Amino acid sequence: MSIRLWLLSGFTRLVIKRWLAKVVEVTDLREAFERHAKRVHIAPPFAACRNGFLGGIPVKWVSCGRPTSDNILFYVHGGGFVVGSPDTHRHMVAYLCRSLGIEAVMPRYRLAPEHPFPAGFEDVVASYRALITSGRDPSRIILGGDSAGGGLVLSLLAYISKHNLPRPKGCFALSPAVDFTRSGESMVENAASEAVLVAARFEEMSKMYLAGQDPKQPFASPLFADFPNCPPVLFHVADHEILRDDALAMQCHLLDQGADVLVRSWPNGFHVWHMMLGYIPEARQALDDIAAFIKQLP
Amino acid sequence: MSIRLWLLSGFTRLVIKRWLAKVVEVTDLREAFERHAKRVHIAPPFAACRNGFLGGIPVKWVSCGRPTSDNILFYVHGGGFVVGSPDTHRHMVAYLCRSLGIEAVMPRYRLAPEHPFPAGFEDVVASYRALITSGRDPSRIILGGDSAGGGLVLSLLAYISKHNLPRPKGCFALSPAVDFTRSGESMVENAASEAVLVAARFEEMSKMYLAGQDPKQPFASPLFADFPNCPPVLFHVADHEILRDDALAMQCHLLDQGADVLVRSWPNGFHVWHMMLGYIPEARQALDDIAAFIKQLP
Repeated sequence: MSIRLWLLSGFTRLVIKRWLAKVVEVTDLREAFERHAKRVHIAPPFAACRNGFLGGIPVKWVSCGRPTSDNILFYVHGGGFVVGSPDTHRHMVAYLCRSLGIEAVMPRYRLAPEHPFPAGFEDVVASYRALITSGRDPSRIILGGDSAGGGLVLSLLAYISKHNLPRPKGCFALSPAVDFTRSGESMVENAASEAVLVAARFEEMSKMYLAGQDPKQPFASPLFADFPNCPPVLFHVADHEILRDDALAMQCHLLDQGADVLVRSWPNGFHVWHMMLGYIPEARQALDDIAAFIKQLP
Repeated sequence: MSIRLWLLSGFTRLVIKRWLAKVVEVTDLREAFERHAKRVHIAPPFAACRNGFLGGIPVKWVSCGRPTSDNILFYVHGGGFVVGSPDTHRHMVAYLCRSLGIEAVMPRYRLAPEHPFPAGFEDVVASYRALITSGRDPSRIILGGDSAGGGLVLSLLAYISKHNLPRPKGCFALSPAVDFTRSGESMVENAASEAVLVAARFEEMSKMYLAGQDPKQPFASPLFADFPNCPPVLFHVADHEILRDDALAMQCHLLDQGADVLVRSWPNGFHVWHMMLGYIPEARQALDDIAAFIKQLP
């Protein structure tokens, strides 16, 4: 564990987690996250972003230097289905673009509570389908996402399987939220050790997103979806975060379906520590691990 | 899935698994395994083996080409605690030696039923301790093992933790047997899909090894051991083998202890398919994945 990670975990726990525990308005949270991202999350040099549309959904195209590969990353940002945007996550996506010599596209999907499930999921699907019909070879597309975005990208994968769409190249999910029934023990056991998220507020978030709908719906909780013909999937998870068992349950589920699954845990990481690129060496190491996983995909 | 793997899985299921289901004498099984290994398991060119002793335990030293690194692999072979030897596994160990430019040592530990627990475990510990006292830097030692040997090497790791010995560099376990209470569902669910092992004979083997002793003893079933100060651990497992849940339960357990854990599954592999090096491309890929894991260890 680096000293920087140790300091940052302490800060996060004392400041960010406490603030998340008491913030009332979703709009305040959104604004603070965007403001914070603009100041704190610095994209690597030569990162280039441009806004566009795919299937009527606003998206952000990201690259970093001239792309040297035809592969493309379709990345769905996290933020508990209620906050975040391609702007808050562009720095880590740009880093991956540079490492892999690829381009990325991030859908700006609709957020709860204004737009509960399945609005955001539909936006993700619509932009992905438009990416394919625009002429991109699906076998060169890598799906990725973190937290809520990790859940959405796995739901997208389930949608691709269900509708017999061509298989993407691979998928990675960083501490994904895949189970609204909250069956995992880590939600309780790691409530204290978790450095960022407030377990007690998870239910509020679920209510906003599901708006009374069945938490077991496969596209809301991909843990209950089928994944025939699944491409290789990489999970990253921190040992002591509340969403840990979401990833482990998903791992088991995908193994049952005969998928090629790789789970890597970080002993001292916190929820999507990758975001802190430039501040902790563990963020770069984890992003490099994703790049290595993508590079070895057949 | 390669055609060769498909053919080999069928052969294994029709011939090896059926034979394993009906063989009566352990000595027959041992002989057949050694004979089979001599004919079928071919070490890579320039592999060199020599027998020796470490702490009074017979060991086999393996190398392949001139070692270029000070790292050393301490590898414990599998065979259900009742069969197998360094001779049956030297080919895959030699392949790793070549990939990594290292030397390896494999203890020829005592087998059940003649020598029930803790005889084999004691031999593993004694040879490891002798390796360190011979002057080898523990932080350059990589522990590895498959099946029963994977369980033994995790027991060794627990022993190292318990006695505050210096931490080894890392550890890998291929489809390890870590739980004599057989709590995993895969033991039942994958009984039919498993291509090599016969689930129904697992209890017989346990009886030979434990000889009436408590299956929850931490050095017999490392799933119940403590692992403070654990080095990074890599698991390899096949999706549809009976020991799958042993690896997944161990993963969870090590995460709870704050370890850096990496689990990779192979959708179409079978129990320790690595052994079929030279016959299926998946064996080489899996061994290369182990080498990549070891190379990135800090």
